[in-house]
Amino acid sequence: MIGVAINGYGTIGRRIAYAASKQDDMYVTGIVKNSPDYVTKQASKYFNIYAPDNDKKKEFEASGITVKGTLDDLLSESDIVIDGTPEGNGEKNLKIYKQHGIKAILEGGESKDAVEVSFNSYSNYSKSINKNYVRVVSCNTTALARTLTPLNEKFGINEVNATIMRRATDPNDSKKGPINAIEPSMAYPSHHAGDLKTVMEDINIETTAVKVPTTLMHVHVINLELKSETTKNEIISALSKKRRLILFDGNEKINSTAQIMDYARELSRNRSDLYEIAIWKDSINIYKNKVHYIQAVHQESDVIPENIDAIRAMFGIEQSMSQDKTDASLGIKGVEY
Amino acid sequence: MIGVAINGYGTIGRRIAYAASKQDDMYVTGIVKNSPDYVTKQASKYFNIYAPDNDKKKEFEASGITVKGTLDDLLSESDIVIDGTPEGNGEKNLKIYKQHGIKAILEGGESKDAVEVSFNSYSNYSKSINKNYVRVVSCNTTALARTLTPLNEKFGINEVNATIMRRATDPNDSKKGPINAIEPSMAYPSHHAGDLKTVMEDINIETTAVKVPTTLMHVHVINLELKSETTKNEIISALSKKRRLILFDGNEKINSTAQIMDYARELSRNRSDLYEIAIWKDSINIYKNKVHYIQAVHQESDVIPENIDAIRAMFGIEQSMSQDKTDASLGIKGVEY
Amino acid sequence: MIGVAINGYGTIGRRIAYAASKQDDMYVTGIVKNSPDYVTKQASKYFNIYAPDNDKKKEFEASGITVKGTLDDLLSESDIVIDGTPEGNGEKNLKIYKQHGIKAILEGGESKDAVEVSFNSYSNYSKSINKNYVRVVSCNTTALARTLTPLNEKFGINEVNATIMRRATDPNDSKKGPINAIEPSMAYPSHHAGDLKTVMEDINIETTAVKVPTTLMHVHVINLELKSETTKNEIISALSKKRRLILFDGNEKINSTAQIMDYARELSRNRSDLYEIAIWKDSINIYKNKVHYIQAVHQESDVIPENIDAIRAMFGIEQSMSQDKTDASLGIKGVEY
Amino acid sequence: MIGVAINGYGTIGRRIAYAASKQDDMYVTGIVKNSPDYVTKQASKYFNIYAPDNDKKKEFEASGITVKGTLDDLLSESDIVIDGTPEGNGEKNLKIYKQHGIKAILEGGESKDAVEVSFNSYSNYSKSINKNYVRVVSCNTTALARTLTPLNEKFGINEVNATIMRRATDPNDSKKGPINAIEPSMAYPSHHAGDLKTVMEDINIETTAVKVPTTLMHVHVINLELKSETTKNEIISALSKKRRLILFDGNEKINSTAQIMDYARELSRNRSDLYEIAIWKDSINIYKNKVHYIQAVHQESDVIPENIDAIRAMFGIEQSMSQDKTDASLGIKGVEY
Repeated sequence: MIGVAINGYGTIGRRIAYAASKQDDMYVTGIVKNSPDYVTKQASKYFNIYAPDNDKKKEFEASGITVKGTLDDLLSESDIVIDGTPEGNGEKNLKIYKQHGIKAILEGGESKDAVEVSFNSYSNYSKSINKNYVRVVSCNTTALARTLTPLNEKFGINEVNATIMRRATDPNDSKKGPINAIEPSMAYPSHHAGDLKTVMEDINIETTAVKVPTTLMHVHVINLELKSETTKNEIISALSKKRRLILFDGNEKINSTAQIMDYARELSRNRSDLYEIAIWKDSINIYKNKVHYIQAVHQESDVIPENIDAIRAMFGIEQSMSQDKTDASLGIKGVEY
Repeated sequence: MIGVAINGYGTIGRRIAYAASKQDDMYVTGIVKNSPDYVTKQASKYFNIYAPDNDKKKEFEASGITVKGTLDDLLSESDIVIDGTPEGNGEKNLKIYKQHGIKAILEGGESKDAVEVSFNSYSNYSKSINKNYVRVVSCNTTALARTLTPLNEKFGINEVNATIMRRATDPNDSKKGPINAIEPSMAYPSHHAGDLKTVMEDINIETTAVKVPTTLMHVHVINLELKSETTKNEIISALSKKRRLILFDGNEKINSTAQIMDYARELSRNRSDLYEIAIWKDSINIYKNKVHYIQAVHQESDVIPENIDAIRAMFGIEQSMSQDKTDASLGIKGVEY
Repeated sequence: MIGVAINGYGTIGRRIAYAASKQDDMYVTGIVKNSPDYVTKQASKYFNIYAPDNDKKKEFEASGITVKGTLDDLLSESDIVIDGTPEGNGEKNLKIYKQHGIKAILEGGESKDAVEVSFNSYSNYSKSINKNYVRVVSCNTTALARTLTPLNEKFGINEVNATIMRRATDPNDSKKGPINAIEPSMAYPSHHAGDLKTVMEDINIETTAVKVPTTLMHVHVINLELKSETTKNEIISALSKKRRLILFDGNEKINSTAQIMDYARELSRNRSDLYEIAIWKDSINIYKNKVHYIQAVHQESDVIPENIDAIRAMFGIEQSMSQDKTDASLGIKGVEY
Repeated sequence: MIGVAINGYGTIGRRIAYAASKQDDMYVTGIVKNSPDYVTKQASKYFNIYAPDNDKKKEFEASGITVKGTLDDLLSESDIVIDGTPEGNGEKNLKIYKQHGIKAILEGGESKDAVEVSFNSYSNYSKSINKNYVRVVSCNTTALARTLTPLNEKFGINEVNATIMRRATDPNDSKKGPINAIEPSMAYPSHHAGDLKTVMEDINIETTAVKVPTTLMHVHVINLELKSETTKNEIISALSKKRRLILFDGNEKINSTAQIMDYARELSRNRSDLYEIAIWKDSINIYKNKVHYIQAVHQESDVIPENIDAIRAMFGIEQSMSQDKTDASLGIKGVEY
């Protein structure tokens, strides 16, 4: 049993904690939370709570939450730590983790250079085998890797151009906007292209990112050129082989991200999450070797199965065994939904 | 065991089906759905599917969904039917239910005059005992009855004035707006005042309704005058005695409806629902016999426990036994969260 | 001719500059802008630009904008300065203005204690006659004073209770949210009640403020008790006597703030502003001495005529002459629209 | 002087009426409005009002609006009619216009096959010379034609791929959503590609359309391949030659469509419109013969100068004279802003 520590219990941290607790070869040693709010109160019913340091420990205890120790205590009782602290802190924290001689996973907001290797479960699982410091790429990059990997494996990809419509903030945030505006990123390619290359080395991709006023999901418009001509059926067949993808049919009345996330609620999963990347089957268009499709990404949860797989890879477990365990435990059945 | 039919599997119908399936004295005989979309597909994993008529039955079967029969079949195999069809259809459907000699519950969008009595589990449970045709009042009215009943019971209420900020549409709808506007209803009082009087007969209330561009929750600003002076602690104590209410504290960082619904997701409930009415404890203000507070209402789910209780009342089961069963089965623990 | 300096050219500053330039007894000596952005570029076509200091002056000139001097230069060439700098800076700036021996107006975000008197053109114009340091109250407070003053003058007001639905941010801001949430303020009364008392001394008012995800207008639900009974026609008549109010009729299809601001665009005014407070005539309801109505407030512009009037009051010009000049120059015709 | 009738005074119709009234070789004979709402009331101050028929005439007069006659009357007193009626009515109305022997312009929502030729002032002005029935293409198509025409003329375009993020509805509408969702169109290419070919015959273009919850502007992400290699400066130079384009610089702090429309308000134009297509200069990226840029489109007004030009073309006036008159009268100065 791998003892998994969670440092940071925000959008991603709390979901990894839940997912890790569902695995038969892992257990959650504890979580580190920074303030005693409503999230901590609930978490304390399921997990051991640790404070960043002794001062914070007292603040937690003053608010009636039992604290088992500090981050230092937690690290010495764990086999691996997942860093879910706010973007930009991971690299600093990594030094602490290294001092404790503990394996560590950073999330997609951190620099690729901070770790040994970046991880996606479909595109480069094996590179993380027995590694100590691994980064799971971001929600958008994970989504790109998920659908491009099966197409690249089957047909070979010459080049990709993707427009990424980003949800502006998560549903539980009420500070950030915009309320009524579209905000494009000026960088071209946006950082997503470079990030994808950390897990799909030879991919030739350009990306544009545009922020839009919604909280539910990102949407990607993808145009790519394969090395050979194909048909719509062959594309659907390639995508259907992977479990972490869902292909929605037009007659199911899934017109927008509102219905996709409603579908997710119907699945009765924890936090109404959608781990899979959703692809509108009707959006798939083929012209000779050119492929077009549109996919939607639940930014809060699509990286969760990847984090669980990354843990296993770092302990030497091979790809298909890990994916089978992860997907079975989280109810991911993919296209046969 | 009470056999419960669900006619209409939209926002409310599907949640009643789930809740009924969790009771130890009820079972879901089947659900009637109008079209074979993604919701029906999921529902068919848990429930028997019936079609409105034989033509629709063929349409469902053509799309690969097994249909057990028609509405008529379902009604003859059930003890009670819950009408969750779109607003305005209930009265028409009631004629069919009466022909089948089956008890029926209509929802809050229907006229009070269509049924024998309107229902709220806190304010007038006993009036529905052994009745055949009952209406559960709407999400907003239910929320008002929930918090006003304990205050009325303990202090007596002279008059209430409430401003209701309505979420414009539900999260799974992408057609309705407004995107960027505030739309007040001109009616004063809005229909909520009259509706509340169907379950709290002597209440003296005025309400104003204003539509705002959000999907998560309604928010009520409530000002009332009690028959006697009181203190904040007494008000909190009165509200704390009821399980279907939650009082949030300022230091828990619940600033808006975004954090309340995030809290609901942390509860790991089905569809991330919040059956309880949320009250901001910091908003409670007392001046002599005047009371002010602000509450938030999860419009998709607050009426669900009421519907389950209404079923039991209609079969002669008394209030506290029903509420205990309903709340235990749905994980409703109220203020001791 | 009164020489008017504008320090700060944001939402309010730029509109006061425009309005002052339209008066026959004032002229704009210059505006102080903090950074050379797109707004400054346009402003430089109409107004002399001054920089806060010599360093900033160089930054402006480097970006190709001609700068006539610094704030100090501007103050010595002007008779009065309007402080339109970001909220909270006014009090600090006031020290500089006093050193220059120049009259100054602060805006509603500043403390009432920083100045000699707070100002609303309807409720307490005369108190600012020949004063040196005056504060024009905020957009929401101005709106309350506008409609409550005629009712108080004609009937006497016992008490007011208002719920203020605040637009979350201005249309030109893309940073602030919420995108999809309702955020009530816990303070009761919200600061608006106290602020109103700075211009309507004896008013008995409670206010609740709630932030909603829109940018166009604030909306107020107002419930009040008069000293005597009245009729709807009398209320309409009292409100109709004031020019800075518009009463919309239901059959004109003004259902929401979206149509009100569209109406404003049809007026062909500068920046499509609506200086008047809009009242839905259909929302006016009377029961004995109780009055209910709903009004909408264009937060970017309703205080502009007040600022122009405040300037005149501070130079000893009496109320009706100032209001006549202000309204004529800005096209404000009120109810006879 | 050309007598211009406006049939339909919605978003586009009212703006064409305004613009036509500013030309020295045209005058507005009258406008036809369908209902006596707040827009009609304002319009009646500037224009002769006509009713669709005699019944409607009476309805208008009952609400106090003077009506000069019916549509039939208006057509017999005019030289040309602009059809601004709701999408889908133009073709039907065209039959009436033909019976009156009057020239007519339809807008972009109508079928290209209903008219002799489709029109864009930059790409195919001359084709409409002396024509009788012309269609001005839609806001999005006009925007594409505006920026692609100068690039095509100077470099030749091999192929274009554009992702169009559509504002979901106009600012004055409060009915349509989505409030919190992204809704892609399944059609690939979206209808915009075919529509562009009606005014740029040989263009090789694919477009994807995605609806996002905002009211202000559309945003286009454009990727294209030229017939020859180029540089960023050459692209900027080509775009700068056209007046109906604005290139914004990053240091002007125009981060989103919120700031662009704020810029438009600073221009002091009627209805705060932005006739020009806005291009983020910083988004322009060149790699050999590949060009990437992002543009924003004010959907309410970008087609207005085109309609004025189309009128002149249909009366035999040549391109540069018309564009000069149109742009001078509307204050369009393009890149030298």
